Amino acid sequence: MFSELTMASALARAARLYPEHPAILDTAGDLTWTEYVARIARAASVLRSLGLEPGQRFGILSHNSVTQAELINAGYWAGIVPVPINYRLAPSEIGAILNDAECQLLTIEDRFAPVLADPALAPWRDRLLHCGATPAGLAGPSYPSLREGATALAMHPSAPDDDAILLYTGGTTGRSKGVRLSHGNTIANGIQIALAIGARTTDRFLHALPMFHSADLFGTAFTLVGGAHAYIEQFTPNGLLEAVARHRITVLSLGPTVVIMTLQGGDFATHDVASVRLLFYGSAPMAVEWIRRTMERFPRAGLQQSYGLTETSPILTTLIPEQHLEAIATGRHELLRSVGRPVLGVELRIVDDQGQPVPPNTIGEVVVRGPNVTKGYLGLPALNAEVFRHGWFHTGDAGYLDEQHNLFLKDRIKDMIITGGENVYCTEVEAALYRHPAVSEVAVVGVPDERWGEAVFAVIVPAGGQPVPSEQELIDHCRQHIGGYKIPRRMAFVEALPKSAMGKILKNELRQTYGQ
Amino acid sequence: MFSELTMASALARAARLYPEHPAILDTAGDLTWTEYVARIARAASVLRSLGLEPGQRFGILSHNSVTQAELINAGYWAGIVPVPINYRLAPSEIGAILNDAECQLLTIEDRFAPVLADPALAPWRDRLLHCGATPAGLAGPSYPSLREGATALAMHPSAPDDDAILLYTGGTTGRSKGVRLSHGNTIANGIQIALAIGARTTDRFLHALPMFHSADLFGTAFTLVGGAHAYIEQFTPNGLLEAVARHRITVLSLGPTVVIMTLQGGDFATHDVASVRLLFYGSAPMAVEWIRRTMERFPRAGLQQSYGLTETSPILTTLIPEQHLEAIATGRHELLRSVGRPVLGVELRIVDDQGQPVPPNTIGEVVVRGPNVTKGYLGLPALNAEVFRHGWFHTGDAGYLDEQHNLFLKDRIKDMIITGGENVYCTEVEAALYRHPAVSEVAVVGVPDERWGEAVFAVIVPAGGQPVPSEQELIDHCRQHIGGYKIPRRMAFVEALPKSAMGKILKNELRQTYGQ
Repeated sequence: MFSELTMASALARAARLYPEHPAILDTAGDLTWTEYVARIARAASVLRSLGLEPGQRFGILSHNSVTQAELINAGYWAGIVPVPINYRLAPSEIGAILNDAECQLLTIEDRFAPVLADPALAPWRDRLLHCGATPAGLAGPSYPSLREGATALAMHPSAPDDDAILLYTGGTTGRSKGVRLSHGNTIANGIQIALAIGARTTDRFLHALPMFHSADLFGTAFTLVGGAHAYIEQFTPNGLLEAVARHRITVLSLGPTVVIMTLQGGDFATHDVASVRLLFYGSAPMAVEWIRRTMERFPRAGLQQSYGLTETSPILTTLIPEQHLEAIATGRHELLRSVGRPVLGVELRIVDDQGQPVPPNTIGEVVVRGPNVTKGYLGLPALNAEVFRHGWFHTGDAGYLDEQHNLFLKDRIKDMIITGGENVYCTEVEAALYRHPAVSEVAVVGVPDERWGEAVFAVIVPAGGQPVPSEQELIDHCRQHIGGYKIPRRMAFVEALPKSAMGKILKNELRQTYGQ
Repeated sequence: MFSELTMASALARAARLYPEHPAILDTAGDLTWTEYVARIARAASVLRSLGLEPGQRFGILSHNSVTQAELINAGYWAGIVPVPINYRLAPSEIGAILNDAECQLLTIEDRFAPVLADPALAPWRDRLLHCGATPAGLAGPSYPSLREGATALAMHPSAPDDDAILLYTGGTTGRSKGVRLSHGNTIANGIQIALAIGARTTDRFLHALPMFHSADLFGTAFTLVGGAHAYIEQFTPNGLLEAVARHRITVLSLGPTVVIMTLQGGDFATHDVASVRLLFYGSAPMAVEWIRRTMERFPRAGLQQSYGLTETSPILTTLIPEQHLEAIATGRHELLRSVGRPVLGVELRIVDDQGQPVPPNTIGEVVVRGPNVTKGYLGLPALNAEVFRHGWFHTGDAGYLDEQHNLFLKDRIKDMIITGGENVYCTEVEAALYRHPAVSEVAVVGVPDERWGEAVFAVIVPAGGQPVPSEQELIDHCRQHIGGYKIPRRMAFVEALPKSAMGKILKNELRQTYGQ
């Protein structure tokens, strides 16, 4: 069913059915689906002219941009597999990914050029394609100039099971793993998301989360229905609001911390956000006060929570807007800590150590099956055998299902601290700390406390090149943004946060380390 | 992709994920998905207890009702193929269908019992299951009493390619043909419709069109998302509005004639229809005045036109609400005569006699491919080879695509008459005539006229048991409902209208017959 659809044929279909609809919303000039797909076909021809053949791979090191979207889509079109890389990684980590993926080429945004000085990236210095003009002192052609002269490449007929994209996950602890997502995987999740959110031809989606992250695949839903895409380079509260207002964005996909930072730091008086009909969010629950405030600030937007993994292209479950409204109307706020129910085609079970399903309200491991589940990690057969045992993909996440088949994840349930009888949502405290310029990454957890039951504890990665702030400075900073009982009582400064192979912060580990 | 979904597993999924959501809205008491699927499993057990095995078939002769829905779903659940039959057919035609389908059983609503007196139905007199109590003088058990004592049947594991339902099409001219729709076909179209209309868990769908018609499969979209179903026995303007108001219906699927009759004859002052978010319609275009009036009467409803066939489960293309709004806003009303663009997964071409695609704006035959296309007619290999030549299903419909890939059907374009410079939509005239009690079926066409260019011509099948009305009586009747220039100048009274194998009235034939 739908097996003739690939990421490339979905683009061709959008150009055929919605020729004059906007595909790209851009201050440099919007593009219709006809114009955009013509450009992608030329970009595909550029990749081919640099020696890349179907099935081979190329790395991408870039902030969010129309150019990055074009290059990823050009890969789909030519049957060449894009490998968008987290630009926050160390050069050695970037080099390890390019090696592991056997990339034939690295497309790079000019401002990341300094990273090439690192010996780990030496092999790629003569296999570059520059997203802009070729910077002085560097080899490699410039993509925009090559594209000008290129003729359109005919679409490569990929099979549904062929790799569409390779995304790396994990990386702070252990080796970073390449997740192989096929055309069938990403198209399936595109359909699943389109069904879950009621995607429409008139939708205008803002790519606000980093495009090297699987969350960016959310955009496939809009290509399937002929909707439009817009991009912001990097998140800032007013940058987000400005893009929403300028492009009349209808759908946003964000993390709760970003939502809270936008509510706190964004200028809603000068930016009209009435076009937003849906605010999709994942990775952590939001406190009911913040959900209420979001609804006030985005008066026409439904809120929809979700849960997914890079390995599942990515969405597995979703808590729909009506469940948010119901939770608020009935006062059963605990529902807001659920990630909801599986999307169509996903089978989801909670199992014990023997792989046997457990009854409702019993914690076990979340295992899944479905058309959006990866065929496995690149070159890691032993790990693949391990995660796919008993015919199910093992997510590594613990959780339970309630009687209504709503999924609650243990990690996310614990993302609320009860201190002195007050509820504190970690996301809110994290959002406050992220507003301090000297904070690069932060995780807030609850640790046992004799007097308060639990105490708020912040583990902070200081920003490079900035003096490490004092605890008192951060406490004073927090006081401007959150209530006194939410301010971390204790803090730790670390070089890196522990993360799972899935790239998620291991808060359990932090609780053990700092809870003593 | 989605191949684990069958019509039965979709029901099981709704019961698992949406246990306490309403599945059935009924004056006799609503049913949750848990209750409804439990009832279906018992009904499946009743069918099995009467000797029906997976792959065998049973006929259904019933008005729309929860009971009929239950029996159809019980068939899906048990792997037994339901054959809902048009109760307006003659007993000999009903007998021919039951024979052709080799039905093992006929489930029958009490009020159709008289039809059993016909010799053509003699073989089924001792293979009956009565939808209510067993009527006096008839054999066969009563379904409700058998269901009471039944235990739940475990779901039969149908394969995606197994037949789900057999629907007969055609019948006035030539032999009625059984269209085999597999679980994969109907699930695919359920997904395609859900995507095309943004079906939601909170949707409440009214089954207002006859359930023996493929249009009823529209409801699958709501089962897939855990929405609710309501039924009305037969259409009347106020019966429809009453059901909408009582059940707070969100989605309607109707024909334009029914829409116009509702606008003309319905009491909108006493029925609240603000719950309707979408009015889906097909089979003919609507004049812009009626689209405007519909928008006024259903102020929150988008309008969405569509085109489909029994053979395609049924939806192929759709003109979305935004296209309706655009056509009205820009004054390009001709777009309202298009049936729009293919739904996801449908490939559609216009071809010439040699099966070669023709350029935009050139009329040819509509051919299609997709997961919702039937595997063929029951027991008609020669016809199957004919309709599936060159690897495409040939719809028998003529039309063209515009540059924007919107499909225009020749039959539907001709469904507007230009008389004395005025546009007359046939659907509106037909709706006026349908309001006369002596009219059973009517088709309005334009015929050449020296003075007016075209003249409005009505071909009428008088209602059985009523005196045939005079032309003057019908003209006086029309004068109450439509403007003078829309009133048919000439009429013909016939026993039956010519119809295609697809069951569509052959207006072209009427134009030829009466256009001399």
